[in-house]
Formats: sequence, structure tokens, C-alpha cells
Amino acid sequence: MKTRAAVAFEAGKPLEVTEVNLEGPKAGEVMVEIKATGICHTDEFTRSGADPEGIFPAILGHEGAGVVVEVGPGVKSLKKGDHVIPLYTPECRECDYCLNPKTNLCQAIRSTQGQGLMPDGTSRFTTLDGDPIKHYMGCSTFSNYTVLPEIAVAKVREDAPFDKICYIGCGVTTGIGAVINTAKVEIGSRCVVFGLGGIGLNVIQGLRLAGADQIVGVDLNPGKKAMAEKFGMTDFVNPSEIDGDLVAYLVNLTKGGADYSFDATGNVKVMRTALECAHKGWGESVIIGVAPAGAEIATRPFQLVTGRVWRGTAFGGARGRTDVPKIVDWYMEGKIEIDPMITHTMPLEQINHGFDLMHEGKSIRAVVTY
Amino acid sequence: MKTRAAVAFEAGKPLEVTEVNLEGPKAGEVMVEIKATGICHTDEFTRSGADPEGIFPAILGHEGAGVVVEVGPGVKSLKKGDHVIPLYTPECRECDYCLNPKTNLCQAIRSTQGQGLMPDGTSRFTTLDGDPIKHYMGCSTFSNYTVLPEIAVAKVREDAPFDKICYIGCGVTTGIGAVINTAKVEIGSRCVVFGLGGIGLNVIQGLRLAGADQIVGVDLNPGKKAMAEKFGMTDFVNPSEIDGDLVAYLVNLTKGGADYSFDATGNVKVMRTALECAHKGWGESVIIGVAPAGAEIATRPFQLVTGRVWRGTAFGGARGRTDVPKIVDWYMEGKIEIDPMITHTMPLEQINHGFDLMHEGKSIRAVVTY
Repeated sequence: MKTRAAVAFEAGKPLEVTEVNLEGPKAGEVMVEIKATGICHTDEFTRSGADPEGIFPAILGHEGAGVVVEVGPGVKSLKKGDHVIPLYTPECRECDYCLNPKTNLCQAIRSTQGQGLMPDGTSRFTTLDGDPIKHYMGCSTFSNYTVLPEIAVAKVREDAPFDKICYIGCGVTTGIGAVINTAKVEIGSRCVVFGLGGIGLNVIQGLRLAGADQIVGVDLNPGKKAMAEKFGMTDFVNPSEIDGDLVAYLVNLTKGGADYSFDATGNVKVMRTALECAHKGWGESVIIGVAPAGAEIATRPFQLVTGRVWRGTAFGGARGRTDVPKIVDWYMEGKIEIDPMITHTMPLEQINHGFDLMHEGKSIRAVVTY
Repeated sequence: MKTRAAVAFEAGKPLEVTEVNLEGPKAGEVMVEIKATGICHTDEFTRSGADPEGIFPAILGHEGAGVVVEVGPGVKSLKKGDHVIPLYTPECRECDYCLNPKTNLCQAIRSTQGQGLMPDGTSRFTTLDGDPIKHYMGCSTFSNYTVLPEIAVAKVREDAPFDKICYIGCGVTTGIGAVINTAKVEIGSRCVVFGLGGIGLNVIQGLRLAGADQIVGVDLNPGKKAMAEKFGMTDFVNPSEIDGDLVAYLVNLTKGGADYSFDATGNVKVMRTALECAHKGWGESVIIGVAPAGAEIATRPFQLVTGRVWRGTAFGGARGRTDVPKIVDWYMEGKIEIDPMITHTMPLEQINHGFDLMHEGKSIRAVVTY
């Protein structure tokens, strides 16, 4: 069949909205009609050419929501008509990783997914001329129709709006999950969040949900303050307004250091500040942001020997098929908010404008609806 | 009263065995007759002048065992005749740190201890000319008699030999505690230990005690192999004999990476290798070694984002008054071994020879008996 998609033909070039061929689902796969997709910094990381593992041509997008329209042979957990969110971190429930409660990094289809292919080592997308187009993060939600492995699809309730819950496919789950699954923040904690963009805001509402007593947000842009307060931030710190050492300022503000700190900037120097403002003896710092290729974090080992812990998180430590439907429920029950973060909605034809808005810092999340 | 002690008068100079004056215990303090003391790399770190926080003149030594000979006003938990081990990490059971189950870093007397003073801000030691001499790590076990705060003394059973259990005052507890308290190693784990000196050997016997399935020891000195095997090492790796990447070799040897890795070298490059050979998704690396002043650890944040955790430990995460008596029991019950690690015993007059043996790599632990 044919479907409309925004194709990244070359690194650094704008996406091209065009028709492509899509093969139907093979064994263990499903075809999904994508109803909405967010535009995330990770898509831009690859589109721009900064991602050393980027492959082209490819159909980007990994933050979608839609409806199952066809299932391949052997698919048991999904049927036509199911409302779903694609998962760039699958959950096979059978590999060594899925069976270890300490991680969410299912490895079942890792190698083919990294090559932009379905688990059988082929792509379902081709140009109208028949040239292959690669999948992206196993999702390719910048196509109106896409094919996904069954284990990379979370079934969600049918009354949830696609143009909001698509954001649960990445940003919401990453931020809230970093708090709940990775840091396991306790009631009463004092926390610091670096970077008040789409991920940072979700860390903040995750902290509110977890019962944190103090939620300090750190950002160079004072324009981020009002929105972050809406999501639960209790203290705002603009590093450009602090005289002297930022670490010392934050340690003092949190009465000894953060019980938990989170980097949602991707800047390795900020990651160091986040670690070092953690409380001596027990403070834990969680890296969420994706750093530029080759960048390294550093600190004196004394910081760890005196009790700080350095962690990272991918997809918020969430097991997608299990956890994503719960987060959709939380949204529908009003435990978390998404609507104020979806600042722009547009048709696929304007997807490059969505990237521009993100670049310019004008959007928290721009969503494409089909 | 007068007591014999080995005094560090100046950084970089040998210790000088001489008589010094010792004032009796003030409120909340006890006087202990030290019966035996180990010589540890940390003493040498300070003696040599490498420790930027070193203060002179001082009486070093922090790994001792002895008998209470006098108690000051208000002391309730100790009496004359009690057998004890001095604690450089005290346990007041009242501060915010003692009341937080995540840390052992009691802060009750931190600032005065760091200045080489008793909690009231004065020293109990003076030269025979009346010049003040500083305490060291709150212990000063290189003096035949010393004064300690009550909260910095662990009471132990009376049938345990001083010249062996003194090692529990630092090395044994640090190594075994890193496994049990900090890493919380589970039965069946695969582990890698870097550095097979006095701390590394105790990590290894801690891993055996915890039921680890694979205990890989890494050391450039093949002479360390036999002793490490005696304590439970299952695989020996000499990095100088490995072609290619050591991390890849260790990941392969442990079938995917270490569940837990431990640095007992103090070398920041080794600390990086230790982190990076940890298993993707859940491997944790624990820094035990003390790095040179100013040295920094580094890695790509991707290592943490894909699930590795970087930690450190001080005094093996042990709460001394609570945990040290238990470790003495384990030794007396044969659950752990200490005797083969005490390779040399000497009188106080030969303490500089003990430092030489450590330098030359000839001793695991040299112990001074009074």
C-alpha cells in the first residue's frame, strides 16, 4: 500500500513529505495508522546529522499514537482497532533484560532496530521508485501508516486523545519514569531539575506526583519559570543570576544538597553540576539528556566516595507495554497533565515548521496530526 | 601521663618514635591502650605529604585494637576493660546522617576530626616540650595510649586477638562492607575486582561470603594470584597479558559484563575501566580506592544512560559501632579469614620498616604490636 510520510533523505536536509510504499505486517508485526506524533529533540539529533549512528534515507519520528489496522501471523496481544502507542524500547518479556527487574532495556530486537530494520532484517518502506527507506527507532511515526513488531506496541484505552497521549510515547514517560522508576524518589525529597524543556517539565510533574517537598528548576531562560511552576516547581534558579558557585548555591538552597537531581539538558558540564549538588551521603543524580557524540562527564571520585550516586535512564526506566498504559490512565484521571505542554499542532505538511519551532525554543511540544 | 608514640613531625619525613604527653579523657571520651595497629596506605598518603589536608605534627594510625583504660564523665556505653576497635568513621546514632539508612557518614564530630582535634576543639597530645600534636582521623593508633570520643569506639568480644582484629578497623571492613553494604551483591552475581592488595582481597572474601558465582581479580602483578585464589577469586586477569581492549575482554569473560565491579586501586583510569566493564542495564561499579589529589574520573554519559551505576564507598558503608563487632564475630566463627593477610608483625620501633614493606609491595598488612 501507499502512505504519506515525511522522509529524511539526507542528513542536514529538511524532511520531504511524499508518498512511499509500505509493505504489510509480517509474522509478529502489526500495521498501525498513526493519528498523531510529537516532534522530539532526538528526531532532530538524527535529522541534523549530529547522531553518528544516523542512517538515511529514513522515516523519523518515535513519539506517536494510533490504531492497529492489520495484524501479521502469530500476533496474539493485539487486534485490529486497538488504540496503541509505538515503543522505541520494546518489551518482549522473555529476554535476559526483560527478566531482570533492574532494567527496561529489552534486547530482543536491538541489533536490527539499530540498523533501521524490522526484526527479520528487512524494511517495510520503499520509495515509489522501489528504493529502500529505513525505519527509525523501530517506530517511524512520521509516516501516516507504519509497521511495528508486536513487542514494540503498548495497547492503551480508547477514550484517550491521540494528539495528547502521543507525547507519552517518549517525553512524558522519560521524565516521569526517571523520577518513579529510575530514581525511585521518596515522599518529602528535595530535588533539583536542570533544563525546563519538554523532559524537564515532566520530571517536575513526576516529582510532584511522587510527593517531593522541594522541586528546584534550573534554566538559563527565565521564560521557562511560569510553566514550570504550573507543573509543580517550587524554586527557580537562573544560573546567570547567581554570584559565585552554582553548586554551593544549590546545596544551600536544598539544605545540604539534593536528595535527587536530574539532568535534562544533555550538556556534560551541567551533568557534573547536577551530580555535585546532590546531598553528601545519599544524593543520587540521574542523567536523562543525550550528550553530543564523544562528550564525556567527569568529576572527582571523592564525590562518589562520599556517598553520591551517578545513574542514567533511558525511556524513564519504563517497560513500555506494562507502564505506558498506566501513564495514559494517569493522564485521563488527571494525575498528570499533558495539554499545556502541547503548544503547537499541525498537519504533516508543516512538519519542518515544527522543527523550526523547537529550534527557536517556541514550542514545548509540537504535534503533527494526520 | 606519658606514652610512646610514632610521631609524624613533618610531611615526607620518617615517623619518630618518642615519648609524648597524653591528657586524660574529657567528657564523652575514653582512653584506650592500643594493643596492635595496622599500617594502611592512607597513613602513607598523609605521611608522604600527598594528602592536601594533612596536618603536622600528628600521630597517625587509624586501624587499631585495644582496651579501654579510663572513661571520661558521661560515658555510658563503655567501661574500663572493654576490648575495642577505634572508628575513624564514628556512629553517634543521632545526627541526620546516622538517622538516614542510606549512609554511614556520621557528621557529629566531622569538623574537629578533620582539623586533628577532639570534639571540644583541643588535642590531648603534646610533645614533652608542651607543643601540641594533632590527632589523626580521630584515632592516632600509632600511640600506645590514645584518647577517643565514645561515639568513635566499637566494643568487641574479648576473646578476639588484637593483632588480627585491628585490621577490621579499616581494610577488612572497607572491602567486605563495599560488597555487603554498598553494592549489596546478590547470590549468583558475576563480579570483577581491580587491585588485589589488602582491600581487594577483602572485597574478594566479601564476594565469596555473599555467594557470588564468578569473582574475577585484575592485577598487573601475577604474584597476587595465589593469595587471591585462597580468598575466593575464580578468574585472574593480568591486563599486560591481554591483547586488545581490556573492557571487551572482561565483558566477554563475565558473559555480558560484571553485575558488580570494584576499584581497589585508586587509579582513575582503572575506575573508568571498572565502570565500563559493568553489565549494560544493571551493572554497578563501586569506587573504594583513594585517588591522588585533583584526579578526575570520566566516561561517556551513554555508559550511565544504558543502565550502569557509579557509586563510591567509605569505610565499606559500615556503621562502626553496629557493624564492626559483627565482623569480629564473623572472623572468630571462621566466616572470614584475616590471618594470612597479616604478613608482618613488628614492634613500634620498627614502624618505618613497616611503611617500607608496604612501599615495596612485600606486605599485605604489616601490624605493629605494642
